[in-house]
Amino acid sequence: MYGLIGKINATTGNRDSLAAILIKGVSGMPGCLSYVVANDPTSPNSLWITEVWESQDAHRASLSLPSVQQAITEGRPMIAGFGERHETVPLGGHGLVASTSKV
Amino acid sequence: MYGLIGKINATTGNRDSLAAILIKGVSGMPGCLSYVVANDPTSPNSLWITEVWESQDAHRASLSLPSVQQAITEGRPMIAGFGERHETVPLGGHGLVASTSKV
Repeated sequence: MYGLIGKINATTGNRDSLAAILIKGVSGMPGCLSYVVANDPTSPNSLWITEVWESQDAHRASLSLPSVQQAITEGRPMIAGFGERHETVPLGGHGLVASTSKV
Repeated sequence: MYGLIGKINATTGNRDSLAAILIKGVSGMPGCLSYVVANDPTSPNSLWITEVWESQDAHRASLSLPSVQQAITEGRPMIAGFGERHETVPLGGHGLVASTSKV
């Protein structure tokens, strides 16, 4: 498995809108086992994104999906920048479930 | 929802054993929507733990579960220390599923 933990900083006042776009855009991605969008309670504009994928290739491929491309297009103007970013190697746990593909 | 992102540093050579104890110990926790144990590929002894709970109370209550108490007892000698720790407010996404309680 392949994982990512990262922080996105929204432009002022746009965190909720950006989160909604991300949550909508990432449903049904093949090979995605977990994708959680969370507010950072210590920073009014920051989101934490935690992801688990079957493989790094599955993550890479997702970036070409129409739904993800649309989310990127809609969300990009609301992104002020990116914070820390960590790759992980998930081993197991609870809440790792295959997506139901939209295709 | 209530979330945690944190790093645990295992004693040398014990990361795999500690991860196995955590993965086994955390199944079936009431109110747990996601709990992922992952290796940190940049550090041979570090684990990333990402958690989503229905509430902070559900997380707190989990610490009293027999399965979690046992995991703490078994795992504690393998823990060298804790790294960064972030509380989050999860909003949604994929892979948030209620546990099937062991009770």
